[in-house]
Amino acid sequence: MIDTEKARKIFDRDRYAKLSGVELVEAGSGFCTARMKVDDRHLNAANVVQGGAIFTLADFAFAVASNSHGQLALAINVHISYLQAVSAGTLYAVASEVDTPKRLGVYEVIVKDEQERIIATFNGMVYRKNKKVAGL
Amino acid sequence: MIDTEKARKIFDRDRYAKLSGVELVEAGSGFCTARMKVDDRHLNAANVVQGGAIFTLADFAFAVASNSHGQLALAINVHISYLQAVSAGTLYAVASEVDTPKRLGVYEVIVKDEQERIIATFNGMVYRKNKKVAGL
Amino acid sequence: MIDTEKARKIFDRDRYAKLSGVELVEAGSGFCTARMKVDDRHLNAANVVQGGAIFTLADFAFAVASNSHGQLALAINVHISYLQAVSAGTLYAVASEVDTPKRLGVYEVIVKDEQERIIATFNGMVYRKNKKVAGL
Amino acid sequence: MIDTEKARKIFDRDRYAKLSGVELVEAGSGFCTARMKVDDRHLNAANVVQGGAIFTLADFAFAVASNSHGQLALAINVHISYLQAVSAGTLYAVASEVDTPKRLGVYEVIVKDEQERIIATFNGMVYRKNKKVAGL
Repeated sequence: MIDTEKARKIFDRDRYAKLSGVELVEAGSGFCTARMKVDDRHLNAANVVQGGAIFTLADFAFAVASNSHGQLALAINVHISYLQAVSAGTLYAVASEVDTPKRLGVYEVIVKDEQERIIATFNGMVYRKNKKVAGL
Repeated sequence: MIDTEKARKIFDRDRYAKLSGVELVEAGSGFCTARMKVDDRHLNAANVVQGGAIFTLADFAFAVASNSHGQLALAINVHISYLQAVSAGTLYAVASEVDTPKRLGVYEVIVKDEQERIIATFNGMVYRKNKKVAGL
Repeated sequence: MIDTEKARKIFDRDRYAKLSGVELVEAGSGFCTARMKVDDRHLNAANVVQGGAIFTLADFAFAVASNSHGQLALAINVHISYLQAVSAGTLYAVASEVDTPKRLGVYEVIVKDEQERIIATFNGMVYRKNKKVAGL
Repeated sequence: MIDTEKARKIFDRDRYAKLSGVELVEAGSGFCTARMKVDDRHLNAANVVQGGAIFTLADFAFAVASNSHGQLALAINVHISYLQAVSAGTLYAVASEVDTPKRLGVYEVIVKDEQERIIATFNGMVYRKNKKVAGL
């Protein structure tokens, strides 16, 4: 079974999440919370957080939640809606499982700021391979 | 009018694209090509390029193409499909305008590798503000 | 303020929903439940409910929920994921508001069958016009 | 191999498409054109074509194109963007294959009116079962 400790060990190997300052807060079976403290590196030419940075935060929580059952899950598509531009503060992504895990799985991720305003909603689908997640 | 030179100057301020190693190759009215040479920083825990890195490459081309008319365009949502996992080489994102620019605009971005294999398709919508893009 | 009665009167004019056998169950501020009893007319060439029929059920609940505040809301895009094929029974769509209504609004619709299995998830965005919904 | 004749015979069993007045115009390996003459049955409460009717037209072309190789393909998700409201005339949906067919496949459908204005863009993904399409 996954727990926050184990998840941290495994997903610590995600170099792009690390580069982006994404941290795992909590993980369990079918869910994950991650956070990202916004700083200068995340800003785009219009001085707001780049869509890719928000996506990466959400995608990381999605990856942890969808791989939490121990079977390798690959993202096959994602839909993200941006509700609010943001340029400072800490963002939180909470990923949860929409349905019981099968070959295909659907996950929902909500990205909020510290004032609980919704910054983005993210809906992702995975395809599960006949392979174990290394370390789980 | 936008050209590659001008676009480079403006979008050079995109710090997250820079952090991610995304480079502008060519830009014009309603289109943009960008590239990203894959290296260790882009990899996830499964040792393939993180979905967020591919998204960021595509999102950058989308931002340049949708802002190319000089009116500030904010991404409101994006759908991305991943067709092929990738772990090395250079990726190219080509963004083009689906329809003539209005208040809402739709853009399509195709991400390919050097062998012209499609890595991802990206479909994004922008909302145009009554504001100019600084520098255009 | 909207209520189920008023919503029924207004959305009774939706001829495509009617053709498809979609019925309004309950409506309120920012939410709606609709249902569709599956019969032969909904089936595709593979003898399962056509994706368009499931979409139409969800889209109707989305339209009612997003127009419930009295300001005309037009769908600008939708993402739907199909989790389970279905060929009989009654389907229910429950639409709810992800965030407080603004110029752009995001709605989530869950389609379930009578056994509470999730058939589809639907995520839609509207753009609000400076116009009232006739009858609200 | 599929051709228009064969495709018509098979997809004539799609009762929801028939109810919606969707007709197959042309089909081949990995592509399909379908059309729908707008009439009163397609209109919603705001007197424009219901989003579900446009979706159903596009979805039909998507189903034909994605099943054209003879292996049963089920839609797993779709993203649709609406660019233009419409209330009369004939709509055309052209579906094409984004990539060579594999277990997962991505299709793009463009919906236009007779004046070649883009009404909607539709991006769909299928999962292929180990089963043949009956009649192909």
